Amino acid sequence: MTKKSSEGLTAKKEENFSEWFTQVIQKTELADLRYNVKGFLVFQPWSVLTMEKMYKHMEEVLQRKNHEPYFFPTLIPEENLKKESSHIKGFTPEVFWVTHGGTKKFKEKLALRPTSETAFYQMFGLWIRSYKDLPFKTYQRANVFRYETKATRPFLRSREFHWIEAHCVHATKEEAFKQVLEDMKTTEEVLNKTFGLPFIFFERPVWDKFPGALRTFAADVLNPDGKVIQQPSTHILSQQFSKAFDVKFKDKDGKEKLGWITCYGPAISRIFASVIIVHGDDKGLKFPWEIAPLQVIIIPIDKKLNKKAESLKEQIQKFASVKIDYRDKRPGEKFNYWEMKGVPIRIDLGLKDLEKKQITIFRRDLDKKIVVPEQNVIEKIEKISKEFTKNLIKKADKIFEGRIKDVKNLKEIKKAIEQGKIARCCFCSVEKDGVKCAEVIEKETGAEVRGTKLDEKKKPLGKCAICGKKAKEIIYIAKAY
Amino acid sequence: MTKKSSEGLTAKKEENFSEWFTQVIQKTELADLRYNVKGFLVFQPWSVLTMEKMYKHMEEVLQRKNHEPYFFPTLIPEENLKKESSHIKGFTPEVFWVTHGGTKKFKEKLALRPTSETAFYQMFGLWIRSYKDLPFKTYQRANVFRYETKATRPFLRSREFHWIEAHCVHATKEEAFKQVLEDMKTTEEVLNKTFGLPFIFFERPVWDKFPGALRTFAADVLNPDGKVIQQPSTHILSQQFSKAFDVKFKDKDGKEKLGWITCYGPAISRIFASVIIVHGDDKGLKFPWEIAPLQVIIIPIDKKLNKKAESLKEQIQKFASVKIDYRDKRPGEKFNYWEMKGVPIRIDLGLKDLEKKQITIFRRDLDKKIVVPEQNVIEKIEKISKEFTKNLIKKADKIFEGRIKDVKNLKEIKKAIEQGKIARCCFCSVEKDGVKCAEVIEKETGAEVRGTKLDEKKKPLGKCAICGKKAKEIIYIAKAY
Repeated sequence: MTKKSSEGLTAKKEENFSEWFTQVIQKTELADLRYNVKGFLVFQPWSVLTMEKMYKHMEEVLQRKNHEPYFFPTLIPEENLKKESSHIKGFTPEVFWVTHGGTKKFKEKLALRPTSETAFYQMFGLWIRSYKDLPFKTYQRANVFRYETKATRPFLRSREFHWIEAHCVHATKEEAFKQVLEDMKTTEEVLNKTFGLPFIFFERPVWDKFPGALRTFAADVLNPDGKVIQQPSTHILSQQFSKAFDVKFKDKDGKEKLGWITCYGPAISRIFASVIIVHGDDKGLKFPWEIAPLQVIIIPIDKKLNKKAESLKEQIQKFASVKIDYRDKRPGEKFNYWEMKGVPIRIDLGLKDLEKKQITIFRRDLDKKIVVPEQNVIEKIEKISKEFTKNLIKKADKIFEGRIKDVKNLKEIKKAIEQGKIARCCFCSVEKDGVKCAEVIEKETGAEVRGTKLDEKKKPLGKCAICGKKAKEIIYIAKAY
Repeated sequence: MTKKSSEGLTAKKEENFSEWFTQVIQKTELADLRYNVKGFLVFQPWSVLTMEKMYKHMEEVLQRKNHEPYFFPTLIPEENLKKESSHIKGFTPEVFWVTHGGTKKFKEKLALRPTSETAFYQMFGLWIRSYKDLPFKTYQRANVFRYETKATRPFLRSREFHWIEAHCVHATKEEAFKQVLEDMKTTEEVLNKTFGLPFIFFERPVWDKFPGALRTFAADVLNPDGKVIQQPSTHILSQQFSKAFDVKFKDKDGKEKLGWITCYGPAISRIFASVIIVHGDDKGLKFPWEIAPLQVIIIPIDKKLNKKAESLKEQIQKFASVKIDYRDKRPGEKFNYWEMKGVPIRIDLGLKDLEKKQITIFRRDLDKKIVVPEQNVIEKIEKISKEFTKNLIKKADKIFEGRIKDVKNLKEIKKAIEQGKIARCCFCSVEKDGVKCAEVIEKETGAEVRGTKLDEKKKPLGKCAICGKKAKEIIYIAKAY
């Protein structure tokens, strides 16, 4: 649409990641950053079409796992937020407040939801009566708002973002923990298998939990620049929440008990940032097949081939989204354009090829051209479509290769972080006692304790890398966005 | 979920429409009205699943007609709203204002979008340069907020609602008018052919235009109680908008010209109200096949039939959504429950039937049971699925039958309105001059001038039914929600 759109990227991903990221967003027309409210952006068709597909995949999996969809109000009364003390403490600095309707000032101000625990659980309190109502599994597709104090970045950290939040009530702490494991599995199914993103799930140290959570687990995706990006997190909430909102049930034994609540929050627009970053290259975007806004583009190099293009389109659209580029531009310009836009497969329809009864296909997963006998072309495209995302995953998995570095002391942590690595070491404690050591790490290296791994195979033998006391944990340290 | 959900409706649609509507919403669990912000509601799974399908149908048609999807910010700066004077005048009394982020007071307050003209057009001004960029056709799926001064009603008039807004820029007024006709056609395709809703499109009188519009066209759906409900409206905006937001383009003749903007707003949650009202009956909901949250329910009356139920489910799920009701309840209770929930087809699996190699099907379109030979049952269900919505449309169309009454004077208008009819008469003018006559009508009858029909075949012969001056128009008068 804009004049610049046909020009390629000039920044290199490895050399200047930040500039590369901004160029990709602007030149491929994912979002316009010129909207006149700070931290808000206009999502353009290329990102909306992708995010709609991402929503579809995530919602399908949640519904298959018996989550039911709701739409809750965007506005939450202040009194609701105040009901759980650590929750309000954590979120108050970030709340956008609605104070007036027309010219009337409200008696009580209303929050633009920063997250919806205090809206959902108030209703859970009304809906749940008996153990027969459990597990009670819900979710909503919604946009949420945070008046971020950190620097905003398109998709990665905006003041309005598009997400899904799933909220569940279980009868016991054990079942709540099983829910957390299910959420991790869902993240694996969707973010890894479908979106092609590699990540590690960490249990966060107590000082980095979600406000009001008992335990917090979060997926860290590794950036090529060595920093990590937190993606979906899932939490077992403290029973302060069920108490505050009266989420009780009569158990089989006739006794009234507090429910165990979990919540899970995949932020679609933020996950999209990782899709851009992990798969993209110096040419531009690279979409996994399943979420590509357009899967196949056909470029007829001569007008005589328009009919052939139409016939191919008709066959391909039975299993993939496909368009023909009839624009009045040079073929080379079109090739670059669609590579930048990240379309998985391009068909270059040339006269010489067709004389030889063959067709040239460019596949963006391997970034190579292949020549296919004309009669096999549809079959070949179907085959590529099935292996496309797997090829992206293979490449993405390499990001983590050799990235984890075992270290023993502050000096080694510092060195590993400087090299863009994730440092792994023995640590005194991820409970309150450990916070001082974590502060030392952050101050000295600029990196954060990301937490422990649930399935950690090693045992913490030896001493804390910082204070030298007996180590209780093995922790991972990285710089984060 | 709640205890009441298995109990049927007690209110009759024809006798006490208002109570019937509330009962349907609560007993079929479409929405919970107990959320603690006035005019806001919690949409429950049964309505969310339906509205998601409604979105899908509407978005598919818009995309087929080359509208591209965007997500614009929910917040709009006050300065944007102020740029078009009649727009701000129309919407200011209804705006929810965001004034603070955390504890910081903003210099300029931000509106929770009541509609997004002033967000879209600011960007259109940046994006559109040349006649080659036109037509520029967009839409977004969004929730919007209006601090309604009128009484709120769930789905029908809430303070937050879920809609689609489509915004287009055209080079000429003629093309803008063609867009309006296309929008009417889209309304026909989706609301009538797919959702089964009958309506009449009226051009609104000047005093009832959308704030900032040159011409406003709106679909009025007729309620069984004689009132009409305004559904999608489409507008040619005054060029004040393009001027205010600098939406200009260089035309073929090299001259810079102002764009002609149109906007179209199908409010999904409000259309859902009409789906409930038009198709529902004293038993409960009745969903058109295409948007039913569940299309087929199987009720095995004996445990021995569970295997048979599973095998039927497997075959049906290839073309329809289907579930088996294994709950520990009496068959009669289950029958009533699913009829109330509006599921199109119910399969009653009984032992006696199966001995006779037959299956009983209940179809909610005709509200009757049919007995089908076992080997034909899948074929029969597929056949019903294809004619289901057509049957609903046939029935719905009858609402309009004999509903339009030709009248000549105020007394006759009054009588027609009292009888729950739409009055049609000659009228002096739908321009400014006519507003006094319209006020007389509203004061004396409680009904409103809904406007003129574009395809009106009759000519306005004679005199205005109110003032007696020469009539320029034929107008329609009805009570409205």
